[in-house]
Order: sequence, then structure tokens, then C-alpha cells
Amino acid sequence: MAGVAGRGGRRKEVKKETGLGLTNKKDENFGEWYSEVVVNGEMIEYYDISGCYILRPWAMTIWEIMQKFFDAEIKKMKIKNCYFPLFVSPTVLQKEKDHIEGFAPEVAWVTKSGESELEVPIAIRPTSETVMYPYYSKWIRGHRDLPLKLNQWCNVVRWEFSHPTPFIRSREFLWQEGHTAFATKEEADTEVLEILELYRRIYEEFLAIPVIKGKKSELEKFAGGYYTTSVEAFIPNTGRGIQGATSHCLGQNFAKMFEINFENEKGERAMVWQNSWAYSSRTIGVMIMVHGDDKGLVLPPRVASVQVIVVPVPYKDADMQGIFDACNATVNTLSEAGICAEADLRDNYSPGWKYSHWEMKGVPLRIEIGPKDFAKNQVRAVRRDSSAKADIPRAELVEKVKQMLEDIQQSLFDAAKQKRDACIQVAKTWEEFVEALSQKKMILAPWCDEEEVEKDVKARTKGEMGAAKTLCSPFEQPELPEGTKCFASGKPAKKWSYWGRSY
Amino acid sequence: MAGVAGRGGRRKEVKKETGLGLTNKKDENFGEWYSEVVVNGEMIEYYDISGCYILRPWAMTIWEIMQKFFDAEIKKMKIKNCYFPLFVSPTVLQKEKDHIEGFAPEVAWVTKSGESELEVPIAIRPTSETVMYPYYSKWIRGHRDLPLKLNQWCNVVRWEFSHPTPFIRSREFLWQEGHTAFATKEEADTEVLEILELYRRIYEEFLAIPVIKGKKSELEKFAGGYYTTSVEAFIPNTGRGIQGATSHCLGQNFAKMFEINFENEKGERAMVWQNSWAYSSRTIGVMIMVHGDDKGLVLPPRVASVQVIVVPVPYKDADMQGIFDACNATVNTLSEAGICAEADLRDNYSPGWKYSHWEMKGVPLRIEIGPKDFAKNQVRAVRRDSSAKADIPRAELVEKVKQMLEDIQQSLFDAAKQKRDACIQVAKTWEEFVEALSQKKMILAPWCDEEEVEKDVKARTKGEMGAAKTLCSPFEQPELPEGTKCFASGKPAKKWSYWGRSY
Repeated sequence: MAGVAGRGGRRKEVKKETGLGLTNKKDENFGEWYSEVVVNGEMIEYYDISGCYILRPWAMTIWEIMQKFFDAEIKKMKIKNCYFPLFVSPTVLQKEKDHIEGFAPEVAWVTKSGESELEVPIAIRPTSETVMYPYYSKWIRGHRDLPLKLNQWCNVVRWEFSHPTPFIRSREFLWQEGHTAFATKEEADTEVLEILELYRRIYEEFLAIPVIKGKKSELEKFAGGYYTTSVEAFIPNTGRGIQGATSHCLGQNFAKMFEINFENEKGERAMVWQNSWAYSSRTIGVMIMVHGDDKGLVLPPRVASVQVIVVPVPYKDADMQGIFDACNATVNTLSEAGICAEADLRDNYSPGWKYSHWEMKGVPLRIEIGPKDFAKNQVRAVRRDSSAKADIPRAELVEKVKQMLEDIQQSLFDAAKQKRDACIQVAKTWEEFVEALSQKKMILAPWCDEEEVEKDVKARTKGEMGAAKTLCSPFEQPELPEGTKCFASGKPAKKWSYWGRSY
Repeated sequence: MAGVAGRGGRRKEVKKETGLGLTNKKDENFGEWYSEVVVNGEMIEYYDISGCYILRPWAMTIWEIMQKFFDAEIKKMKIKNCYFPLFVSPTVLQKEKDHIEGFAPEVAWVTKSGESELEVPIAIRPTSETVMYPYYSKWIRGHRDLPLKLNQWCNVVRWEFSHPTPFIRSREFLWQEGHTAFATKEEADTEVLEILELYRRIYEEFLAIPVIKGKKSELEKFAGGYYTTSVEAFIPNTGRGIQGATSHCLGQNFAKMFEINFENEKGERAMVWQNSWAYSSRTIGVMIMVHGDDKGLVLPPRVASVQVIVVPVPYKDADMQGIFDACNATVNTLSEAGICAEADLRDNYSPGWKYSHWEMKGVPLRIEIGPKDFAKNQVRAVRRDSSAKADIPRAELVEKVKQMLEDIQQSLFDAAKQKRDACIQVAKTWEEFVEALSQKKMILAPWCDEEEVEKDVKARTKGEMGAAKTLCSPFEQPELPEGTKCFASGKPAKKWSYWGRSY
């Protein structure tokens, strides 16, 4: 077992426990590896209804840490939390045609209560635009009622029939959905980007995952919206892009359908400009896919509920009470400094078993305390991400551990970025595009920005692996020399876009 | 309008705005008053599906404040948050017979997704015992896996057909549900009371509502449970008790049905002891019913998102900029001291309108700043609960406001307790019982504790107002002299119980 062998043959032999490791390797069998790691890492338990999953405390804490950050940030923006019902009546749901076309096939319907048939079937929200906006129409009368900025933390249901995947594609998931209304397009535009920046921070600063900010194509934008921005991540192992979170400007489309008008300062009737934006428990799945390895989960320190696990290393004839005390003292010292530390003092598991267990769960830093460490008044720290070891004098504990946790956070991001960047391929022609796609790349290509061309690319790349589509047109555009042609249509290119297969 | 007239004829006349007051009075027309105050106070918006309500930010903040307290307390108890699916398969739902009999008539069923019929209808959780316990069976193997202590914050659905009431009885509501499993009955018993004490604190310390801790009768206990404890509040206006929150010991009943066994320290198989406990958004309804008055909501300071509203009082020729600056400075000073204060500087409403508006919303303390206050370097503070006024020198602002908020919190509790206590009536005979019930009392009566007798009391008191039943048998039992007889059966009394009509 990892770790036990690493410190010389000084210790008594420990019983070899089995059943802790993963049977699948990330690079060989990614899908199975993922299914295994979410369960063995105690993030998920599979549930007896397909596409529904149990979020165990190890996953829930990550959700709560992100929620605490995001909720505080949107409160600074004067966005207020509310709670709208889970249920939508069919007439309201169907009010916005494009919108409902996008969601209709996935809507779950309640038709019975107890033994009685309902008079009218009732839908479960797949998202809450149509749930909320009739009331925006009621609440917004004059320009002083604007902006109206609400958010809710809730569950939504999309009864998808494609392959369900824990966190990534589930029939019920947790999310926040913000719904805002403004007097002017400028205010709406500004907020779209402010929220998108918060989503970038969740991915990059908390989950240590590099994302690309950009705009969705007409084909890929939110059903019924005006334009959609997103943060896009990439999973090198599968060569698939993944939409990390979306911030939509809905324009005045819903305002028209739901009659959300106000009297402006000149006394004229005007329609509001609306946004909606959301991130979901999918974030956790992306984190697992990007950072996990063949030993299990790898949690970035900023979202780890246990950042440091302290393990006593017993030896024959050692002063075990002294070592246990040192473990507890270490936890106390770290806890007082705001570091989330726990000791694993269980007497029925060997140190080796514990090392594997906490590696599986992805704890960023392990501290081992054996008789030699105890005698020298030091601890041994082992990084989950790199397995790098360091002996830390007790006097420098807090300072060094803090530094190591920061290093791990940064290293995870850097490594993920390096891998992601290595997957980006520029393709200027159809041949280059097809070749890059076959190599599972995230393709940056000059594009004419025509919807028919994207449909055509989808049709031409259809296959077992799924068709390629646009991921986003990045806000950071490389130079597009005059005369550059679209890789797919040969027409003049209007912008660079990322293309690839996606989740 | 309140407040404007109160400071002499010195100010210029303000336009009389209308439409702010309540049309129903609490003591005359309680039901209509409640429906009106939840809407006009901006807590609730009625929704187009009966029995579902929109929780507006003004209500949601109260929920969040209680959640923050309770979540931190249960985390100290090493209870961890998780999230189980909204959906339950019928076979699992029906596994515990008594339990499902209690909930079956209210279960909502999903039978369709998109245009397709589901192969098997799927239930929406009315509570999560049957959702969770199959997995407790899987996770719990040995005594080291115990205790298992999980909680979730979620929505649940009970499709009730009796009269829906915002917060109090709604088809979807928010709650937390804790589900714990222990090796011994003693541990379970202890936790039941620890949680009940947290519920008492939510009601008494946050919502300023006196509650009685006690045990439910066999007839009123949780379906499928072993025993139920609760905190019981009382609404004097309707003469109805209301179950505030429940902490159940489930005993080993669910453990038997779901085969939740473990190997104990002696190597023998044993069944776990389980608890479940919950409080819901009903808490907010009880708060409104108890404290609200004919001017609107009355929020206890500890749950008010705005504790102090600062209103400038303009006069002709006054230095308005100076007054506005003083308002902002007041807000800043209070905010820095951790008091939630806001200024209402809108120029299109008169002070009188603003007073009524914030009274309707129940803000505990209003601060008015007019030219005279400005000149004297003071502010005028007006209490929402008692309308008592005080002039506060700016130098003493924080200290005095803190004191006033504490006084308001205590006064609300004291007033509610006095009113509640005045409704408690001891009844030793059937005649006394019937008389007290007709006077809408909460009746404390000696009881033989027989289920058939409670059924009989229910049957004999059936009527337009609803039957009387036990509310709880209080933990604090008055002395029960030898030979005391049951008020209803004439058999020897075993305990004192509270009886009454209830929500």
C-alpha cells in the first residue's frame, strides 16, 4: 500500500487490506473510471431510479462551499434570494414557444395525487423562466421597480433519455438560477458579464479548472433567449468540451410574451430587458473528471471539507499515546489557524489502508506522525496531487501547511491548464478540422458564423462518438487576418470559434 | 397616516396616498387578515396552482437566518448535509405499511415525461424515510459505521386537499429533514431531545414565540415511528394549537423493514435505532400569526433582514442634503456595528407613506431624521411593536439602537407568552373541557392516555370548527394527585396533556 513502503523497512508488517483501489484506470477506461471514482470516493451513491443520484456529504460540502462564495457575491450585487414553486401549469409553461420547444421532451408531468387523477397535469420545472415571469409582469409597474434581481437555490428536473452520468447529466440536479429585469439593455449586458466572471472564479479559483469565456452560437444559445455566454471547460480524456455555466441575456423576448412592461421616466410604456443565469452541481463532476487520478479523487484545497488528514504511524514499542496526542495537537493547531484538519485515529485500520482511503477521497494533504517524527518534533506531509513529501518542524506547521495548500491549489490549476492547452488545435481547413477531431481536440477555427453551416458540420461529423458543434466563440479573439475563410463553408470568416464534441 | 401627524403641525401637508393599509382586522377577521398581510407585507405571492406559494425575498431571508443558525448547530453535533433525490419508486415508498398509510393520500405521482408514459409511476417525496433508508442499510455494516447522522435542506410535496394556507399548509414546502441511526436507544433518545431544544430555540430565541415541549399521543405520533416529540405553539386568535416542529424516535421499526443491521462490538448482528426530525417554512407562518397586527407584519429583530429603516423627513426650506447625508451616515454607523439598517430616500413617496410601508413590512425600528433632529444632532426612533418613541443623540446611536432591538425582541416574546398563557385553561371534567373548547382555549387536562379515548373525544367534538385532539403531553408535568380521573373517560389519569383544535 502507498506510503507504508515508502519509509523504509522500519515498521512492523501491516496486514494487507484489499478492495480499496480502483479497478479502472483513468487513461484506459475513462467512463468506468469515473463511475467508480464517484462511488468509491463517497461523492455519489447510485439510486434505484435511473438518472437520479444521492449526493453524499463529501460532495455536498463542495456544493456548500461554492454556494457560500456565490451567494455572498450576488448579495453584494443586491440580488435577493426567493423561492418559486416546483410546479408549473401547462398553459404558463407553453407560453414562450421556442423556450418550450427546447425543454418539452424532457418535462416530467404529475398527473395523479394519491389515487385521484389531477384535472390538469402539472409540470415539474426544468428551469423557472415561465414559472417566474408572470409575476415579474405583476410586480414591475414603473421604472422605480427596476432592476428586479432575484435568485433561487433549488432542484430542477429534466427527464433526459441520453446516457445519464453522475453530476454531469442527471434527471434531477441542484442549481442556482438568477432572473433579473432591467430598464435598459446596457444594464442587462453588464450583469451578464459580471455573473459570468463569478462563474469563471468558481471554476478557476475554487475548482482549479481553466475555462474559456465566450458566446454561444445561435444554434447553441438558450431556447428563447437573445444571446448566451458561457464558461467552457474541457475534458482531455474524452476530448469533449463541457458547458460549465451559462449567463443568458434574454433580451425582450420573454418580456413580450409575459407582458413585462414599465412606465419609464418619460411616462412611456417600455419593455424590460432580462437575464437569466445558472450553474449547477455539474461543476462537481467537471472537477472530478479534470483532477481525479488512478488513486481516486483529487480535491482542490479550497473546496475540500478535509484539507489535511493526520494519520498516526504506530511502531512496535513506540509511545503510542504520545503519537496520538501529537496527532490531536496537530489537528488543533491547524484548526485554530482556519485549516480544515482531521485525525484518523481508528485502531482497526493500518496506516497503509488509511493512506489509500484518504487518497481515494482526494484529501489534498496527508500528515503522518510516527515515532521518529515525534522524537524530532516534526511531522511528515505528503501531497495528494504530486506525492511530494516534506518534513515540517512543529513550530512551522501552520505556515508550511498553508503554503503547501496554496501550492497544491495552484499546481492543480496549472496542470489542468497545461493539459487543456495541449488539446487546443487550430484548424483552418475542413481536413485539419476532421484530423483534429479524430485526435479528440478542442478546435479553434475561423467561422462564417452561419447557423446552416453549424448544422452542416454537425451532420457531416455525426458518428458513434457524437457530432462536433460549437463550444463558444471566445471573448479573447486571436487576430483574424483579412480574407480568412471559414474552415467549413469557405465563406469569409467572421470570428474564431471553439468546436468539438461535448457533454 | 401613522407618524406624520405625530410630530405636530410643523410640516407641510403631504399628499394622502391610499391602498397601503389592511382592509381586515386581526381580531375581527383573522383568516382574511392573514391572507392579506402575507401578501401586502411582501412575504408571499399567490401562485396559479392552488396550495403553492411564491416565497418572496422578505420571507426567504427569515428562512435563511434560521437555516444559518440551525445548520451551524447541527454541524457542531457532527451531523452532515447530503442530498437525496426528489423521486421515490413505488416499491420502496410502500415498504413501511403504517408510514405509507399516513402519507399515501397526499403523494403526487409523476406518470409522464414529455409525451411518453413512464413504465412505472414515480412518487415525489412527502418525506424521505423510505428514500434514504435502503442506503442506510447498505452503508451501515459494523458498529464503527455508527452513528450515521445526515440532514438535508430540500422541498417536499404533500398534495393536501384541506384548506391551503400560506406557510402553514402548502402543497410544496421547504424544510430540513434529519435522519440519524445509532447503535443504542439511549443515544437516539438523547439526540431527539437535543434537536427538540434547537427547535425551541428557533421559536423562542429567533421568532419570539413561546412553545411547549412535549410528547405526542399514540394517535398523533409520526406514522411508522416509535415516539414523537414536538414543540407546540398556539394561535390565540383562532384558538388553535400548531405543531411547530417534530423530533421523532423511529425506534427499530424502519430498521426492521429496511434491514438496517450492524455487527456490534461483541460480533453479534443488531438493529439500529433511528431518529428523524424536521422543521419547515411553517415557522414563518406561525411568526406572522402570532406577532402581526392591524398595521401589518411585526418582525422580531433577530430574523429581520432590515432591522432599522431610516426615513428622512423633509420640510419646506430645510437643508435636505444635510438630512440625506445624516440618513446615510446613520445607516453606515449602524451597519458597521453589525445592525441591518437601510435608508428609504425615495423622492416620490411622502414620509407618511414610507412609515406605513415599513410598518406593513414589520421592520422593528424606524429612525426619522428631520431638520430639528438634524439641528440637535439626534435621531428619533420609533418602535414597530409598541409605537414608543425615543430621541437618540447621534453619539449614543449604536448603543441605544442595540438596546432597543433587544428590548423589542424580548417584548415580543413576553407579549406572546402572556397572550398564550391567558389561553391555557385547566379542565378536569368533560363539562369544563367543552366549555374551555368553546372559548378557544388550549386545554390542559388529566388523561388516561388511551388511544380509544382520544378517538372518542375527537368524535364527540366534531363540528364546524374541527374536532379537538391532543396537542402534546408536556415534559413539564404539573402534579397529578393520586386518584385524579381522566377528564374524558373517568378512568385513572396517567398524565396531563394539552388538548385543543389545531392546524
